[in-house]
Amino acid sequence: MEDLNVIIDRIDTLLELEAWAEINDFINELNISDVVEVLEEYPDHSKRFFLQLDFNRAVAVFGALDINEQEDLLHKLPANKVAQLLNALPPDDRTALLAEQESPVVKELIKVLNPEERKVTLSLLGYPEDSVGRLMTPDYIDVEPDWTVEQVLTYIRDYGKSSETIDVIYVTDENGTLLDDIRIRDFLIVNPAETLVEDLMDERFITLNVNEDQDTTIDVFQKNNRVALPVVDDKNILLGIVTIDDVLIVQEEEFSEDMQMIGGTAALDDPYLAAPIKDIYKKRVLWLMILFVGELLTIFAMQNFESEIAKVALLATFIPLIISSGGNTGSQAATLIIQAMALDDVDLSDWWHIMKREIISGILLGLTLFAMSFVLIAIWQMSSGIFGVNFLRIAAVVGFSLLGVVLWGTIVGSMLPILLKRMGADPAASSTPFVATLVDVSGLVIYFSFAVLFLKGTLL
Amino acid sequence: MEDLNVIIDRIDTLLELEAWAEINDFINELNISDVVEVLEEYPDHSKRFFLQLDFNRAVAVFGALDINEQEDLLHKLPANKVAQLLNALPPDDRTALLAEQESPVVKELIKVLNPEERKVTLSLLGYPEDSVGRLMTPDYIDVEPDWTVEQVLTYIRDYGKSSETIDVIYVTDENGTLLDDIRIRDFLIVNPAETLVEDLMDERFITLNVNEDQDTTIDVFQKNNRVALPVVDDKNILLGIVTIDDVLIVQEEEFSEDMQMIGGTAALDDPYLAAPIKDIYKKRVLWLMILFVGELLTIFAMQNFESEIAKVALLATFIPLIISSGGNTGSQAATLIIQAMALDDVDLSDWWHIMKREIISGILLGLTLFAMSFVLIAIWQMSSGIFGVNFLRIAAVVGFSLLGVVLWGTIVGSMLPILLKRMGADPAASSTPFVATLVDVSGLVIYFSFAVLFLKGTLL
Repeated sequence: MEDLNVIIDRIDTLLELEAWAEINDFINELNISDVVEVLEEYPDHSKRFFLQLDFNRAVAVFGALDINEQEDLLHKLPANKVAQLLNALPPDDRTALLAEQESPVVKELIKVLNPEERKVTLSLLGYPEDSVGRLMTPDYIDVEPDWTVEQVLTYIRDYGKSSETIDVIYVTDENGTLLDDIRIRDFLIVNPAETLVEDLMDERFITLNVNEDQDTTIDVFQKNNRVALPVVDDKNILLGIVTIDDVLIVQEEEFSEDMQMIGGTAALDDPYLAAPIKDIYKKRVLWLMILFVGELLTIFAMQNFESEIAKVALLATFIPLIISSGGNTGSQAATLIIQAMALDDVDLSDWWHIMKREIISGILLGLTLFAMSFVLIAIWQMSSGIFGVNFLRIAAVVGFSLLGVVLWGTIVGSMLPILLKRMGADPAASSTPFVATLVDVSGLVIYFSFAVLFLKGTLL
Repeated sequence: MEDLNVIIDRIDTLLELEAWAEINDFINELNISDVVEVLEEYPDHSKRFFLQLDFNRAVAVFGALDINEQEDLLHKLPANKVAQLLNALPPDDRTALLAEQESPVVKELIKVLNPEERKVTLSLLGYPEDSVGRLMTPDYIDVEPDWTVEQVLTYIRDYGKSSETIDVIYVTDENGTLLDDIRIRDFLIVNPAETLVEDLMDERFITLNVNEDQDTTIDVFQKNNRVALPVVDDKNILLGIVTIDDVLIVQEEEFSEDMQMIGGTAALDDPYLAAPIKDIYKKRVLWLMILFVGELLTIFAMQNFESEIAKVALLATFIPLIISSGGNTGSQAATLIIQAMALDDVDLSDWWHIMKREIISGILLGLTLFAMSFVLIAIWQMSSGIFGVNFLRIAAVVGFSLLGVVLWGTIVGSMLPILLKRMGADPAASSTPFVATLVDVSGLVIYFSFAVLFLKGTLL
């Protein structure tokens, strides 16, 4: 990885000389991942560079590209090359690629597949998006319980090349029902070679259901320490396997989605720079409008206190400080809880436990800002005398409001994700802007209530 | 997974009967991952349940527990059991566990290791935290180029049991320099058995440097589609391997950290419920105090406009709406860019490209809120007449302020992560509360400037 600059310098030099043969030789010497970087670096030459790769290397490179770069390349390549490539891709990667295409394009692409591959792809595309079915590959090795270890090893020798992974071998009966999974190492270290498969079986295995959500696979892989898991239907018939490298990608998508929701936008389907601006606008504007309407409530809240503001304009100057402190603590609490939920560290039944913890945290954080505001107002008063004789009353209004708003922000921020999950929504939808908006309205009410309480009869 | 409730019901029943022998039998029939769930479900019985497991199963279960549950269990178990367990854990898991402990505890725990395991663990602990060295395991199989395939398979039969993975075999010379990695499948499908290892070598391999940051492994694994990668020092000597299941955990930690920073807290070291409240307070209070001090600037900004507010108290009522709209768009932009950076979709050199896109998005989003505010103020005016004869001027102040603030928020939000990365800081530190605070001050200035512009001579 560290010598990518060297590679690019070399190619730049060769490109200037238009030394195409040397470029080809050079690229054919590179690692797959370096070729991927080179293709990303030279979009204008990607087609030429790609077409001269050995076929097996080309397939590996294509498989390692981002889905957007795969699409881009498909559009540039001649039809016969596209057909070869699609046929050679592992079924799970092919399905992921086709699932991203607009539907008329998919139709065209599926036409170029050979009949057998077309059947596999169409059946994978038949499972709902985000289901385990879309992730699986039917390229696995299955054996029967009455085979000997030697038979298994011979079988792997003959058929292993076409399967996605041979790290785990699956044992099925004549109906295709999954009986067990056995790691390849167990076959390799066993002696004698006449040992039967059934003697290696412990019938402890973990399966994924083909209709399950892809999110669930992350947890299952983490808890079970496997490189591949079998996928079965409701009758326990083995349909395919999911490999851990696909889960790495699911995990990334999952987190990206959460992160974007926390930031207050709908999840983007494409990488940022590849997404058309109109898509980015659409993903953002809806949330922005909802937040805007929510924030209108602050106007109604403040109208009740217009006469107080008219009397003591100074009060208005503290508004941004007070409401943003509430929003900030609310954001912190919401993010902590959303993230703990995403990692399964907390669930709905913990709500009371969380509430207690957040009330304590909220009081501690609120007291900290309470103290800070008192000190600040005192220093300010001493240096400028701006608050006049009522400076202690004003300090009390600001300090107690901060305490109240911070405590309230923490409670709202921590309970909202739980409430959303309880209602079947995504907890990450309690984005920080959403929490901040909710807290703004109540923050104003808290602030002006303290103002009336402490200033009535003096300033008000 | 789906029948966890059945398992728990069964155990509950047996517990009530105090039928310990039946519980033991039942637990010994379960899958590893189910035993893990059971231990998590019954913290009071976890020690008893755990102690009666077969030793190999106990090691597997222990390895599958969260690091906090591992710690918890270590404290409950008798010393001889702890020693057995630590000796049996794969070195990378053991290092991860020990790295989490307070240091006097680590000393105690290291004492119980046998001399050989102690050496391995101490050497792994010698690498910096978050380095690849801490992730690797020295349990791999390495062979030499002049061995035959048959020799390799025999070697695996004899030594494969103790290695973490046999999916990839490493070829080294007599000095331990890495020459190539070869997938086990290539040995299995090759014919004849007298073929030499060097005939299978293509000398294309990817390595990780032992001192590299763990984050980099995520990208390398995703791009190269491997289940394990070799770790070397600067002289290309093979030191160990990193397996993909460890990367799944690194990726999770990485994203959690980003997410917490975006929410405006420092990253927690422990799961939410396991973290002491004083830690949670400490992680949150620093950011909150920094934001509070930043927000003090809003007070200075507003003091310049106190006379305007005193004249037209109505102006104050729009403050929360205006500044939060700026904060919201800023949060959206910051999250999109932070997340695109985390996925390597954009880098520093794209800043101008991003700026252009965000200016267009900002104008579109701003115009949307501009239009909404005009419509709303018009409806409001017609229904209540609250704004009087100057209602169009007020609508203009609010509308143009929204446009300006939204545009400004988008620019600040998108450029801040880039600026932070340029200065060597973590872009995720441009948390949404941080962006909101920055935008609040400028939002107020924009708002009151438009107020003076449109209302001078009429209301002001």
